[in-house]
Amino acid sequence: MKKIINDPATVVAESLRGLAAAHGDILDVRDEPAVVLRAGAPVGGKVAVISGGGSGHEPLHGGFVGRGMLDAAVPGAVFTSPTPDAVQSAIQAVTGDKGALLIVKNYTGDVLNFETAAELAAAEGRDVRSVVIDDDVAVADSTFTAGRRGVGGTVLLEKLVGAAAERGDSLDELESLARRVVGQVRSIGVALTAPTVPHVGEPSFALGPDEIEFGIGIHGEPGRERMTAEPADALVERLVAAVVEDLPFERGDDVLLFTNSMGGTPMLELYLAHGIAERRLAERGIGVRRRLVGPYITSLEMQGISITLLKLDDELTRLWDDPVHTAALRWGV
Amino acid sequence: MKKIINDPATVVAESLRGLAAAHGDILDVRDEPAVVLRAGAPVGGKVAVISGGGSGHEPLHGGFVGRGMLDAAVPGAVFTSPTPDAVQSAIQAVTGDKGALLIVKNYTGDVLNFETAAELAAAEGRDVRSVVIDDDVAVADSTFTAGRRGVGGTVLLEKLVGAAAERGDSLDELESLARRVVGQVRSIGVALTAPTVPHVGEPSFALGPDEIEFGIGIHGEPGRERMTAEPADALVERLVAAVVEDLPFERGDDVLLFTNSMGGTPMLELYLAHGIAERRLAERGIGVRRRLVGPYITSLEMQGISITLLKLDDELTRLWDDPVHTAALRWGV
Repeated sequence: MKKIINDPATVVAESLRGLAAAHGDILDVRDEPAVVLRAGAPVGGKVAVISGGGSGHEPLHGGFVGRGMLDAAVPGAVFTSPTPDAVQSAIQAVTGDKGALLIVKNYTGDVLNFETAAELAAAEGRDVRSVVIDDDVAVADSTFTAGRRGVGGTVLLEKLVGAAAERGDSLDELESLARRVVGQVRSIGVALTAPTVPHVGEPSFALGPDEIEFGIGIHGEPGRERMTAEPADALVERLVAAVVEDLPFERGDDVLLFTNSMGGTPMLELYLAHGIAERRLAERGIGVRRRLVGPYITSLEMQGISITLLKLDDELTRLWDDPVHTAALRWGV
Repeated sequence: MKKIINDPATVVAESLRGLAAAHGDILDVRDEPAVVLRAGAPVGGKVAVISGGGSGHEPLHGGFVGRGMLDAAVPGAVFTSPTPDAVQSAIQAVTGDKGALLIVKNYTGDVLNFETAAELAAAEGRDVRSVVIDDDVAVADSTFTAGRRGVGGTVLLEKLVGAAAERGDSLDELESLARRVVGQVRSIGVALTAPTVPHVGEPSFALGPDEIEFGIGIHGEPGRERMTAEPADALVERLVAAVVEDLPFERGDDVLLFTNSMGGTPMLELYLAHGIAERRLAERGIGVRRRLVGPYITSLEMQGISITLLKLDDELTRLWDDPVHTAALRWGV
C-alpha cells in the first residue's frame, strides 16, 4: 500500500487539520470527537442541517459544510460510522431554537448511531428529526444495509435542504422537503478498480484486468453484477437505464443530472461519460435542466463513476440555484 | 487497460462534448480543430487570454475557460501538443482590438506550435504575445523540455492574468504581469502510480510496490529521484523544501499555497498533505494568505500530488480574489 499518510490511525484527524487550514473562512474543526462545524455556528434563525458518516468519501460531508448547505458534518473513521457521542456533539454545537435535521445515508451503523444521538438530543429538550436517504437502485439489501444504500443523492439532498434552511424554513418544512427529495432521486454506480482502506492495507476486493463491478457501493460493497468491461456508450446507457427505469423518470420530466467520479477516474473520462448520459436522456425526452459533474461522493482512490438523477420542479430548481459557499460547492458568493 | 471510453482516437472529442453539455452557460466547444471558447467570445474591451496543451491534465485548460480567466483553451490529443492551426483558430475566434496573450507551458511542442500560431496571427495583423511558464523546480531539462517544465503555476497564472484582462488591462500590462508571476511561482510533484494513456494502453512507467517518483512531470516524465515511499510528514517536507529553497521563499513572505492532486489521489490524503505543508511553511515564517486545494492540473489517473507556491503582494492577492466563473474555479458570481 502506497499512500500519502503518516499512520492509518491518525489519517482522518490529520486530514481534517488540513481541511481546517485550507478553509478557515468557512468551517471549524473540533477534535475528540471530530466534528466539522460551519464557522460562526450556531447560526441564529435557522434550522441546523447536520450530516456525516464514514470518512473516505470526501468531499462528502465536511466539504459541504458552510453557508447554504450543512451546519455540521460528523466524520467517522474510514468507511466506519461516526459514534453517537460525536453526532451528539455536533448537534449540541450547532442547534438553536429552530431545531436540527439529520441527513443520514442508509447504512445500518449510521442509522443506528444517528438515531441514538437524536434520542440523546431529544432528552436534552432539542427538536431533532432524521431523514434517511436510500437512493441507490443497485441492490435491495447490501453488506452494510437493510434496504437500499444512500449514495450520490445525498449530495443533492444536502444542497437543497441546506438552501431551504438558509431561507428560514421550519423544521417541519425541511423534513417534508427532504422526504420529497428522497422520493424523487435515484443513483447507480460502477467500479473499475478497488479502493484500499488505510488501516486494512490491501484492496477491498479483486477485479480481473477486464472486469468491472456494476452497481458498486461506495465502500466497495458488491453490486448487481461482476461483468466484462464494455465501451463507454454501452456502460453509460446501462447506468442511465437502471436509474430511469427505477423511479421511473418519464418523457417530459425535468431533471438534474449528477455525474460523479468515485475518486480515481480521470476528468477526461468523467466528462465523456457525462456527455453520453446527456444524450441518452435527451433521446428519452427527459430534459436535463441542471448538472453537477465531478468527484463529490467518492470511495478513496476507486476508479468508477455514478449517475444520479433528481426530478426537478420550480422550487427544487430555485433551491439548487441558491447561493452556496462550502469547500467543494460554491456559487452566488 | 480499463477506461470509460469508446475509442482512444475519439476520447478528447467525446470528452469535450460532455464538457460543453455540462457547462453551456460558460463555454462553447468547436470541432476540427477542437477549441474551447468562452461563451459570447470575443468579449469586447479586453485582451483575449488563451492557453492550451495536451489533454489528460483536466480541468486544465478547458475547465478554466470563462469570465475572469481564459477566453479560449486549445486541447491537443492526450499528452500531445495542439497543432498550430488549432491555436490559430482559437486566436481568430476570441481576439479583438486589444490583442491576445498566449500562456504556454514550457514543453518543446507547445512552445513551437504556439509560436507558429502567433506568427500566423501577426501576419494577419493581430497583436499577439506569448508568455512561457516554467515553474517546475524538479529538473533543469526533461523528456519533452529544454529548460524547466510548466506545471501547477500555470493554473495560478491563468487566474491572475485572466482577472487583470477582465478589468481591462492592456496587452503590455498583461505581458508584464505574466512575466512577474512566472518569476515568483515555483512547483514540484511526486507520483505514487503511473497514468495510462488511452492510445498507449499500458502504464507510462513502472514503479515498485514501495517506490515513488520524486519530481515527476505531468506526463509521467522522470523526476529527480526514484525513491522508497516515506511517511507523509517527510514527503511533504521534501516537496516544500524543494520549492522554498529554489526561489527562495523567505521568512516574512506572503504566499498562495496550491496543493494539487495529480488525479487519482484521494481527497483524504490531499488535505492531509495540505495541512502538513501549511505547518512547514508556518515554521519557516512564511505566511500562507491564500490556498487552492484540489485536482486542478492532473495526469489522468496518476496518484500523487504537487505543491506550488506563489509569492503574493497586494495586487496579486486582489487579482486572485476577483470573481471567476469557469467549470473548475468559481467564486464571486
